[in-house]
Amino acid sequence: MARIGIIGSQGRMGQAIAAAIADAGEDLAGGVDKDGDTSAVAANADILIDFSSPSALEGNLDAAIAAKLPIVIGTTGLEERHHWLIDSAAEHIPVLQTGNTSLGVTLLAHLVREAATRLGEDWDIEIVETHHRMKVDAPSGTALLLGEAAADGRGVGLANSAVRGRDGITGKREAGTIGFAALRGGTVAGDHTVHFLADNERLSLSHLAENRGIFARGAVKAAQWLLAQGPGRYTMPQVLGL
Amino acid sequence: MARIGIIGSQGRMGQAIAAAIADAGEDLAGGVDKDGDTSAVAANADILIDFSSPSALEGNLDAAIAAKLPIVIGTTGLEERHHWLIDSAAEHIPVLQTGNTSLGVTLLAHLVREAATRLGEDWDIEIVETHHRMKVDAPSGTALLLGEAAADGRGVGLANSAVRGRDGITGKREAGTIGFAALRGGTVAGDHTVHFLADNERLSLSHLAENRGIFARGAVKAAQWLLAQGPGRYTMPQVLGL
Amino acid sequence: MARIGIIGSQGRMGQAIAAAIADAGEDLAGGVDKDGDTSAVAANADILIDFSSPSALEGNLDAAIAAKLPIVIGTTGLEERHHWLIDSAAEHIPVLQTGNTSLGVTLLAHLVREAATRLGEDWDIEIVETHHRMKVDAPSGTALLLGEAAADGRGVGLANSAVRGRDGITGKREAGTIGFAALRGGTVAGDHTVHFLADNERLSLSHLAENRGIFARGAVKAAQWLLAQGPGRYTMPQVLGL
Amino acid sequence: MARIGIIGSQGRMGQAIAAAIADAGEDLAGGVDKDGDTSAVAANADILIDFSSPSALEGNLDAAIAAKLPIVIGTTGLEERHHWLIDSAAEHIPVLQTGNTSLGVTLLAHLVREAATRLGEDWDIEIVETHHRMKVDAPSGTALLLGEAAADGRGVGLANSAVRGRDGITGKREAGTIGFAALRGGTVAGDHTVHFLADNERLSLSHLAENRGIFARGAVKAAQWLLAQGPGRYTMPQVLGL
Repeated sequence: MARIGIIGSQGRMGQAIAAAIADAGEDLAGGVDKDGDTSAVAANADILIDFSSPSALEGNLDAAIAAKLPIVIGTTGLEERHHWLIDSAAEHIPVLQTGNTSLGVTLLAHLVREAATRLGEDWDIEIVETHHRMKVDAPSGTALLLGEAAADGRGVGLANSAVRGRDGITGKREAGTIGFAALRGGTVAGDHTVHFLADNERLSLSHLAENRGIFARGAVKAAQWLLAQGPGRYTMPQVLGL
Repeated sequence: MARIGIIGSQGRMGQAIAAAIADAGEDLAGGVDKDGDTSAVAANADILIDFSSPSALEGNLDAAIAAKLPIVIGTTGLEERHHWLIDSAAEHIPVLQTGNTSLGVTLLAHLVREAATRLGEDWDIEIVETHHRMKVDAPSGTALLLGEAAADGRGVGLANSAVRGRDGITGKREAGTIGFAALRGGTVAGDHTVHFLADNERLSLSHLAENRGIFARGAVKAAQWLLAQGPGRYTMPQVLGL
Repeated sequence: MARIGIIGSQGRMGQAIAAAIADAGEDLAGGVDKDGDTSAVAANADILIDFSSPSALEGNLDAAIAAKLPIVIGTTGLEERHHWLIDSAAEHIPVLQTGNTSLGVTLLAHLVREAATRLGEDWDIEIVETHHRMKVDAPSGTALLLGEAAADGRGVGLANSAVRGRDGITGKREAGTIGFAALRGGTVAGDHTVHFLADNERLSLSHLAENRGIFARGAVKAAQWLLAQGPGRYTMPQVLGL
Repeated sequence: MARIGIIGSQGRMGQAIAAAIADAGEDLAGGVDKDGDTSAVAANADILIDFSSPSALEGNLDAAIAAKLPIVIGTTGLEERHHWLIDSAAEHIPVLQTGNTSLGVTLLAHLVREAATRLGEDWDIEIVETHHRMKVDAPSGTALLLGEAAADGRGVGLANSAVRGRDGITGKREAGTIGFAALRGGTVAGDHTVHFLADNERLSLSHLAENRGIFARGAVKAAQWLLAQGPGRYTMPQVLGL
């Protein structure tokens, strides 16, 4: 039974992770929040999960290195210098950083890349997502991540192929483009579908999140996997053996 | 067995209607096209179906009135003066004019209006449609027709509530709006879904056309229904008894 | 602000209802459970919501009558004699009894009945539902409720038209039947889709519950509506004005 | 431009293949049917596509070998001895035999195997398919093919894990099983969805055939690919480079 410490334990994700640790039969080693002492938590833990803020990242990494603990980082809004800090830390300890800890989304991106690699440009790619009414941007980060996977599979860049918010007199669909559409309403935690549309047949790959708990569950699964790794920087696809 | 004459018989819809007449066990009374004589077809028919062009409408109505025949009009691109001609003709013969002869879409619009009437504004409405890669505009006319039905059910105007082509920093969803999204690709004949999204539950009403044959089938069914009516102007919902 | 008392307040539904009362801006008047005193809760309440057990029903109705309070009954497993008790109570107070308090499902059943009424037997009806892996029976009660609505719309009995668990050499589909299929897995709170499948077109009406909270929300909405009614027995469709 | 000969040219598939050859910009070398002379067609062809009958297979293979032509075999109902004949022929010429020439279904099976390999048994697998009202068996051969891919990915046998036609008091879902459900109605050419259902998230992989033309299209694509191969026996996944 691994002892898992949570950095950012009072946030919505932190609380969900505490529940996911119990569900997974692991041991909650304690939590820390803004102005708290990460080292104290690290002293009782086998691994750390960090869903706090970019400004706390450096201190958290230092505490993990000092205690020789692996760390899973799900904090969003990281900038280039944060990635440098992570790369440095990864020389000493195992670090897994990701913007999406859902196993389902991670696998979906893998399948989308695979499908895009195998299918020709005569299979038009369209990505549609639905999120709750409070979401302020479109398309979702996950939709873009899936678009990157599709573009990567085709060997093109997403920036040059994305068509977003189609409306009005658009003309015929241009071959090779990747379309994005966004629906908003209710309390939808996140539906994503990538369509591949050809002459007379369609392939559709979808993910539906029932609630935000899946991100916590994925973070704990990533932690369990990371415990068995040596120093280095890792990604979610590796957790699934992709 | 009714004898049905087709105006615009060589077009894609005309040919589909000929097949639908045979499928329905009715009798094809003959067809006419550009520069042809509608009166000659009318002489052998019990009813006419017109999928030709706006410019031919006046002559076709005159021929129908002279032969005292009911007429189904599926021609698109009609302007106000064409509607006046239809109103005048309807004083003498039964006329059914519609922009969509699909029974399924007609019923869907009815169900959408009903749902929008019953559900409060806390059920966000989003309409998404998919069409083939050759379609040059978005959203589809049918999506707009469904949006009109939803707005009508809520007692608002669509023009003031429609949100189309959501993209970028949109802010939170505004209550009472009706969203539209369009996907394009492959040979999709037409998928339409109207979502009603509330707190923790969703109602989704969908129509899928496998091919354009449904419009021909609906036109023939409309013709069969129109044969039993007196002079007047009719609509597709009446064919379904809505 | 109405004061709402919960009978069966410690159960999973009771707790969800307490949360829904707060969300709706109403006042929780207190709760009672097995061996508790319903009268005490009734003394401080404007209305009662009962999600307890059939054996407690008679005492709960007596307490509601004594306090002249309306009561919403969502208890399942009621037998004929329980319905007699409810009918008697309804002579004195407003009573709403239902096996499904979801507004979305209630409306879906209404739309299914409407569609089945309008569409001929050449539109084959198929009902498919998905529920979590712990569910022990198939099809779900809600799927059967939707099947009843479809059969009712067609003017036939469900018992004679239902085809369940299709497998093996089934022969061609028999016209007029209503098919049922059940998927089980994960933590799905409840997906239901009623398909109407015709030549070359399909109409599909779906409901998706993100979690069980919608039943609590529907119960509170029913309570709010019931407060304005006189003595009598009511149903969920009336809450929606159907 | 390859010259393609069709064996079984008057059948529904044969006619669809003729159309697909034209669409693909290839050359129809002629066709042959029951009691016809395959050698005569072979004399003018670069490759043969056979959608005839098992009883004609031996003669067709002999004609292909004599003319040193590659051959695509989509004939269904083959028995073990037919597979021996194909293996023998494959020593002399390129032969591709398959029960499903759709590229989309072939890729879907690949993605399903991949997903089943990566995801643990806590992701319940359910396969649902819809076909037209004339289909006499359930589940479809393609659903079983997808089930085989899923079972293969998990390293188990389908025979021991399949649960078909769930109905009545089934008890909780047994871990590791693969469920099948079949819907029938209208003119549906073939919808297939494989669901992976976990705690709070779902992954769904779908294929929709708009009409049977996709099988013809896939056969022609297979033929184009086979032209570049040496003697040997090939499968559809190889056409996609899987």
